[in-house]
Amino acid sequence: QETLMGKYGEDTKLIYELQDQGGELLALRYDLTVPFARYLAMNKITNMKRYHVAKVYRRDNPATTRGRYREFYQCDFDIAGQFDPMIPDAECLKIVHEILSDLQLGDFLIKVNDRRILNGVFAVCGVPESRFIHACSTVDKLDKVPWEEVRSEMVGEKGLSPEAADRIGEYVQLHGGLDLIERLLQDPALSQNKLAKEGLGDMKLLFEYLTLFGITGKISFDLSLARGLDYYTGVIFEAVLLHQENEHVEEPVSVGSVAGGGRYDGLVGMFDPKGRKVPCVGVSIGIERIFSILEQRLEASGEKLRATETQVLVATPQKCLLAARLKLISELWDAGIKAEMLYKKDPKLLKQLQYCEDTGIPLAAIVGEQELADGVVKLRDVATRQEVRM
Amino acid sequence: QETLMGKYGEDTKLIYELQDQGGELLALRYDLTVPFARYLAMNKITNMKRYHVAKVYRRDNPATTRGRYREFYQCDFDIAGQFDPMIPDAECLKIVHEILSDLQLGDFLIKVNDRRILNGVFAVCGVPESRFIHACSTVDKLDKVPWEEVRSEMVGEKGLSPEAADRIGEYVQLHGGLDLIERLLQDPALSQNKLAKEGLGDMKLLFEYLTLFGITGKISFDLSLARGLDYYTGVIFEAVLLHQENEHVEEPVSVGSVAGGGRYDGLVGMFDPKGRKVPCVGVSIGIERIFSILEQRLEASGEKLRATETQVLVATPQKCLLAARLKLISELWDAGIKAEMLYKKDPKLLKQLQYCEDTGIPLAAIVGEQELADGVVKLRDVATRQEVRM
Repeated sequence: QETLMGKYGEDTKLIYELQDQGGELLALRYDLTVPFARYLAMNKITNMKRYHVAKVYRRDNPATTRGRYREFYQCDFDIAGQFDPMIPDAECLKIVHEILSDLQLGDFLIKVNDRRILNGVFAVCGVPESRFIHACSTVDKLDKVPWEEVRSEMVGEKGLSPEAADRIGEYVQLHGGLDLIERLLQDPALSQNKLAKEGLGDMKLLFEYLTLFGITGKISFDLSLARGLDYYTGVIFEAVLLHQENEHVEEPVSVGSVAGGGRYDGLVGMFDPKGRKVPCVGVSIGIERIFSILEQRLEASGEKLRATETQVLVATPQKCLLAARLKLISELWDAGIKAEMLYKKDPKLLKQLQYCEDTGIPLAAIVGEQELADGVVKLRDVATRQEVRM
Repeated sequence: QETLMGKYGEDTKLIYELQDQGGELLALRYDLTVPFARYLAMNKITNMKRYHVAKVYRRDNPATTRGRYREFYQCDFDIAGQFDPMIPDAECLKIVHEILSDLQLGDFLIKVNDRRILNGVFAVCGVPESRFIHACSTVDKLDKVPWEEVRSEMVGEKGLSPEAADRIGEYVQLHGGLDLIERLLQDPALSQNKLAKEGLGDMKLLFEYLTLFGITGKISFDLSLARGLDYYTGVIFEAVLLHQENEHVEEPVSVGSVAGGGRYDGLVGMFDPKGRKVPCVGVSIGIERIFSILEQRLEASGEKLRATETQVLVATPQKCLLAARLKLISELWDAGIKAEMLYKKDPKLLKQLQYCEDTGIPLAAIVGEQELADGVVKLRDVATRQEVRM
């Protein structure tokens, strides 16, 4: 249990625990990644590709306007299995790119880095290995605060030397594409570091694959990306929406992360009694945050969204025709047509048509005494008021 | 909190509680009905129709083969609002009928009763009002054990007189349709009881509406149906699958409840600070139980079900063609085609085609050196081995 909780690093305190269920130690699901790894290990699955949309829980202070809740949906996609390097990783990035493009959320940027490169940077800058995790979580703040603040936290709280911090600063402020990767592969210090070299080699491969996918325009190799979670072992990535305040602003401003993920090759092995490893890479889409962005945009546009898909309202113009409405609506339902009626015995026709206008139902199927006698239905287009007997 | 828990009657012990979350009393959702009522009250909503598919939790001993889990999905449909009698109730039954028919689960029966009729029966049989709930939960067992056993529980554990139990027995073994309703409306004792008369009047209305829907063939007014939950105030219903062991068995055997519901007019008011009532009627579909029935049936039939919807595998017949595969799969994905490829740099063609056969992918899109040079793709029908260059 403690090992499980440990996977989330500093976030462990946000896990809802369920104490004392008849001697069982239980907790509410914190994310979908750790349970996926546990599922693979428990069922001895060595090869799987799946998506999963489900609720997770955080013992946190909610901030609903920014789309942060205590109970919320996550939407994950993961590829587990021993494969050739960076092919599944590239697919994960392609999927994030596709989702954010298709949702038309505006301009976005997918930052990519690799834990091995970061650790290499820390090593060549003289950070002791025991402090890598701390250095990581400090670097991760670079997207919110300027380098000077991050530097002073490194030197103050995290106990790094000013020289080490300055050297780290030179690396972690770099971002670019294939050219930067090539340059760092030639870097005298980094090229001597085994981990960094491996990470840079894979990053190059990744960018070559992303070039074939034609999506490098919105992808940036960014050495400041660290991501807090302990379980990442290779490539890490995060997608942020860019918000152009107005066209005169030079640098686009990030309005927050909407997707993130990375490679976690050690997690499944931690749940396996024999420690058998299953390499994994995956991505989590922040659908609640995306929903709140889409809702805010909809509200701002003043556009009215229909809450139902009802195609036709079954209506009657006179009293005592409930039976006719019930019979007709039943026929429509059986034919797969989305139909509604008012749950009143004798509603006024005006009220029924008003209901159509209020809720956006485009058609009314009207049965009156005359229609019943003739064996027809009067179909009315609510917007144009045109009627056809059929 | 205690009032909330009380809604589930004897089932309260099955609620997963989350104690001690910084002073908050929390519990995992037990069903979707009580949270729906709470939602309406908290948001002052007096009119709503919605479905909800979500997980609920039971602190119970799981019996996975019978589809009973501790964490499982429920699928609810409810209509809230002040409407003319039995119109929304009839719609709920129509929906249950439609779902069970469309899923082709085999023969089924929807039993219908009304809490007011049951309470009327208990009253005219001399049961004191304080024992109605107990009598109810005992009667509810009639679908599993014979009347003699139910009778002895009533007289023994529940402390009813033998005469009262015998009179109850005469009523609760009745089942039928409109004819039975008419007969009971003439019953000298029941017709004097205000609640029973009201309930029978509404039951008559309901059966008239169900006749218009054309679904009375599979619906039975059954006085033994009680349903354990405390919050029902009017009509109650339950759908059971009937299992014909072989065609010579006269009476079909029930294999368990797959849907249930009823009217709960008092629940929303209990969550409203001012006690404002919102009448509700709803149904819960036992989707997990339905899934386990469908899965068992599939297994018995030996039919193989595809686990993915992949339309085409992108394959290469020679080495060093990963770039071509990545380019082609990206184009297919962008065109909305469900495509897969093996995550290997140089997989053997035979392995790729074998993968199609194993997973049921119908097509392989093959790019070799010749196809690359000619600017074409070879599309292969995996089953017939026919190939077209395109």
